[in-house]
Amino acid sequence: MSIDLEIARAATLAPIAQIAEKAGIPVDALEPYGKYKAKIGLDFVQQIRHDRPIGKLVLVTGINPTPAGEGKTTTTVGLGDALNLIGKKAMICLREPSLGPCFGVKGGAAGGGHAQVVPMEDINLHFTGDFHAITAANNLLAAMIDNHIYWGNSLGIDARRITWRRAIDMNDRALRGIVGSMGGVANGFPREDGFDIVVASEVMAAFCLAYDLADLQTRLGRIIVASTRDGKPVTAADLKADGAMAVLLKDALAPNLVQTLAGSPALVHGGPFANIAHGCNSVMATTLGLHLSDVVVTEAGFGADLGAEKFLDIKCRLAGLAPDACVIVATIRALKMHGGVAKADLGREDVGAVRRGIANLARHVGNIRKFGLPPIVALNRFTADTEAEIAAVQQAMAALGTEAILCTHWSDGAQGTVALAHAVMQRLDAGEANFQPLYPDAMPLADKIRAIAQGIYRAADVALPDAVAAKLARFEAQGFGHVPVCIAKTQYSFSADPTALGAPEGHVLPIRDVRLSAGAGFVVAICGDVMTMPGLPRVPAAETIRLDAEGRIEGLF
Amino acid sequence: MSIDLEIARAATLAPIAQIAEKAGIPVDALEPYGKYKAKIGLDFVQQIRHDRPIGKLVLVTGINPTPAGEGKTTTTVGLGDALNLIGKKAMICLREPSLGPCFGVKGGAAGGGHAQVVPMEDINLHFTGDFHAITAANNLLAAMIDNHIYWGNSLGIDARRITWRRAIDMNDRALRGIVGSMGGVANGFPREDGFDIVVASEVMAAFCLAYDLADLQTRLGRIIVASTRDGKPVTAADLKADGAMAVLLKDALAPNLVQTLAGSPALVHGGPFANIAHGCNSVMATTLGLHLSDVVVTEAGFGADLGAEKFLDIKCRLAGLAPDACVIVATIRALKMHGGVAKADLGREDVGAVRRGIANLARHVGNIRKFGLPPIVALNRFTADTEAEIAAVQQAMAALGTEAILCTHWSDGAQGTVALAHAVMQRLDAGEANFQPLYPDAMPLADKIRAIAQGIYRAADVALPDAVAAKLARFEAQGFGHVPVCIAKTQYSFSADPTALGAPEGHVLPIRDVRLSAGAGFVVAICGDVMTMPGLPRVPAAETIRLDAEGRIEGLF
Repeated sequence: MSIDLEIARAATLAPIAQIAEKAGIPVDALEPYGKYKAKIGLDFVQQIRHDRPIGKLVLVTGINPTPAGEGKTTTTVGLGDALNLIGKKAMICLREPSLGPCFGVKGGAAGGGHAQVVPMEDINLHFTGDFHAITAANNLLAAMIDNHIYWGNSLGIDARRITWRRAIDMNDRALRGIVGSMGGVANGFPREDGFDIVVASEVMAAFCLAYDLADLQTRLGRIIVASTRDGKPVTAADLKADGAMAVLLKDALAPNLVQTLAGSPALVHGGPFANIAHGCNSVMATTLGLHLSDVVVTEAGFGADLGAEKFLDIKCRLAGLAPDACVIVATIRALKMHGGVAKADLGREDVGAVRRGIANLARHVGNIRKFGLPPIVALNRFTADTEAEIAAVQQAMAALGTEAILCTHWSDGAQGTVALAHAVMQRLDAGEANFQPLYPDAMPLADKIRAIAQGIYRAADVALPDAVAAKLARFEAQGFGHVPVCIAKTQYSFSADPTALGAPEGHVLPIRDVRLSAGAGFVVAICGDVMTMPGLPRVPAAETIRLDAEGRIEGLF
Repeated sequence: MSIDLEIARAATLAPIAQIAEKAGIPVDALEPYGKYKAKIGLDFVQQIRHDRPIGKLVLVTGINPTPAGEGKTTTTVGLGDALNLIGKKAMICLREPSLGPCFGVKGGAAGGGHAQVVPMEDINLHFTGDFHAITAANNLLAAMIDNHIYWGNSLGIDARRITWRRAIDMNDRALRGIVGSMGGVANGFPREDGFDIVVASEVMAAFCLAYDLADLQTRLGRIIVASTRDGKPVTAADLKADGAMAVLLKDALAPNLVQTLAGSPALVHGGPFANIAHGCNSVMATTLGLHLSDVVVTEAGFGADLGAEKFLDIKCRLAGLAPDACVIVATIRALKMHGGVAKADLGREDVGAVRRGIANLARHVGNIRKFGLPPIVALNRFTADTEAEIAAVQQAMAALGTEAILCTHWSDGAQGTVALAHAVMQRLDAGEANFQPLYPDAMPLADKIRAIAQGIYRAADVALPDAVAAKLARFEAQGFGHVPVCIAKTQYSFSADPTALGAPEGHVLPIRDVRLSAGAGFVVAICGDVMTMPGLPRVPAAETIRLDAEGRIEGLF
């Protein structure tokens, strides 16, 4: 059994109504799912968003991820816990984990050590069924496309130009590419198709950006699923699928309340991919949290170049949120890898490598300032870190006018993040933030891509093939020029080359393709391959997952 | 808005803890799902099955269904309500409806009028997520098959002989037949495949027949998914998928508690197809109900030739249940159709047609007696039924030594089924039942098929092609000779010809194929085409389903 699971199982959880009460949620606004999970009714969310003032919003992001691990989720949990410990009223907003990957490689996505959201097994499995509902909505739309063609195709859908794919919450490479409708007249017209994992579905992205049910239904209706032979887009609303999809999602849209091991309320809701989508929890959860607490601590996927940029330029822009501070998580181990050390050699002190790797962290610090936000560095401590290595980071951050705060929440829980909590509160109280997105809505789409590439990735330029530029022009002609862009590139580097660690610059960002996510409300710019359906490894975790004699789960974490 | 929905929405529901208390379920055994649904913890189910005596079991079945409608579910609900009304402690056990079909043709599956289980919209949509969990377990196994082949196929699976299909809870004809793993080396070896609707999955059948979690895991492990080139079966246990599948199903296996409009406790749990599976709610729910109440009223799918036979020969045999009485539901309208009247002409009195149609009902009455059970006929009254028509049925049933009780639960609720409740109690109190399955375990499989065909369908014989007989012999050689058989044939007739209404006899039952459901624990004998993936109609209900301005569902029922 993993230490994370051991700690989680040893914890005594408070009944969810007690957590709700602490958070200021009346018990009749709760829809319990078992004893330790609840959904918070949409009526209450609507009402409180009209009634109450807004708290401060703190984003937790990270350096470019390495195999050494950084600990963004644990830091998010630890910071929320520590804020509550020092007397603030804080809520934590996280993404829901996807079920499918649990059966591939061992490990959950609900924090770790003494900084976890619980019940961790439930959260990592079916939880409250949100992803199943999103899968169903995605696949109802797919079924209605083929059904429309089957019964005469009055909309004139060009079957070669159907872009809507089916979805499943499973790592299943066999479904990446399929030919459907095989088997004769009764089964329809055979065509190429495929499944994405549900976190890659545009329904997930639209769900996470929706302000309320009506907005969700509108977004779903806007989803473009295909085009006609003469290039006219066909939407979910054209197929009259939007209403039924919204019905499938109406319960799911209510945010999920759980607790941390320290008893802090946590909203865990929605979980779009951070490559072809924006990678943050739902707007529903974040706005609810801001109306319930002094401080909301939330997280974005991948490193700050992708995660924070999308959180700020997509989610905050579209939801009208103005964050107040940004914590950048780093570890000595990961900085060493950015400084050129191989994973096997991380055990040795190497101050030089740390200094070289700081280039990656320093650039994220500078980038966050471009959005008008104060950056604070959380140095997530591992036992092997040496004083000299830590001092190198602290000196470098001081030179940049910020600070690197040592965090030991994994082993110490909230106590290990109190210093970070104080540092964050200092920035919040000083009112240092003056948030602005990186680019204005009105900028042409190609220029938006360039603004991110040059401003955040420090690329010399963008390589935009003519065909891709023409697609952007078409999106603009269709009335989607005002939307933000969502860059799908590797999370391991500022560049499109996953091996270029540290702080590469002067590179050219190749845009392979662009796609319009009209329902979510952004244009995706794809640099390199984007994996939207993982496969299982040679020995999947599923092979060792079972129930023990007491009916408890073995082998999942 | 339909009358059913209007009535359901006007009802004031009791908090589910109150229903549980009435049923004798302690509140700490409940896992609430919202305010009006709960799962009953497996620990409590295990414990009470050791501690408490067993109530009486009443099956509600019907004549062969016609487009005129019979009302088995409403009668089941009405009878349970009436038993509670007359002072008995009764529980109702029903199948869970499938989500997919809701988007095809309008209408739910939670009863109707004043005889409904509620909250009906929840029950018909995601409910407590059981079907999503079963879908995930089914598809994890599928992914592990292709993954095993991808990584070297050490079990030597013959890809042409993979019988395990993927599943989805959606009416989607485009997924009936697919070619998967398209797109090159990274996606695996292309092969023919397809999706069934989840109620047709063997995981569903195994789930519904499982006595507890350990038994479920054993059944899942036994599922045969493919064979090797030399004909050796490959099981889910060979793929080491059984443990993870059981983990996915562990919450789902806990029975769901809801209430009727009259406040009776109802267990709504599991829902296998009634053609290629056995078509009844879970053994978990039925056995729990029997330990909580004086009488459990439960339902089987389709007419008594399929539904009751499978309930008795498969579910009761495998779970060690001994039912005490059997209610056969009929309507004047349906009897007229069995008597040769077209649907459009049902409005006119036609005693002659009723008399001819009674042949269908009378045969079911006789069949139920073959199992040692007292049959009672519930005549589900429609306003257009005339006194003479009703008298014809009552006289005929009296002549058969039973009675036809008029029921008006649809319009009158429990009051409309009090007479039926008294009639049932009379049989129960008299202890008339002496249950025995139709055939012994030890009978050869081919003879079991013949026993059903001749004993229940009144066929002259069975047409069993040599290849099919050889398959049966192989199942016996593999050690599955002792299992019951599950006949998949049309529900509209005693014969395999759906147009042969009334009481055909002397026909020959053609067995097209046989399949071993080793996990569920039966052999399926297929007569004619079996549809395991429905399609959507020309104008699917989904097109008119939406949320109204108050966020309520429109167009679903």
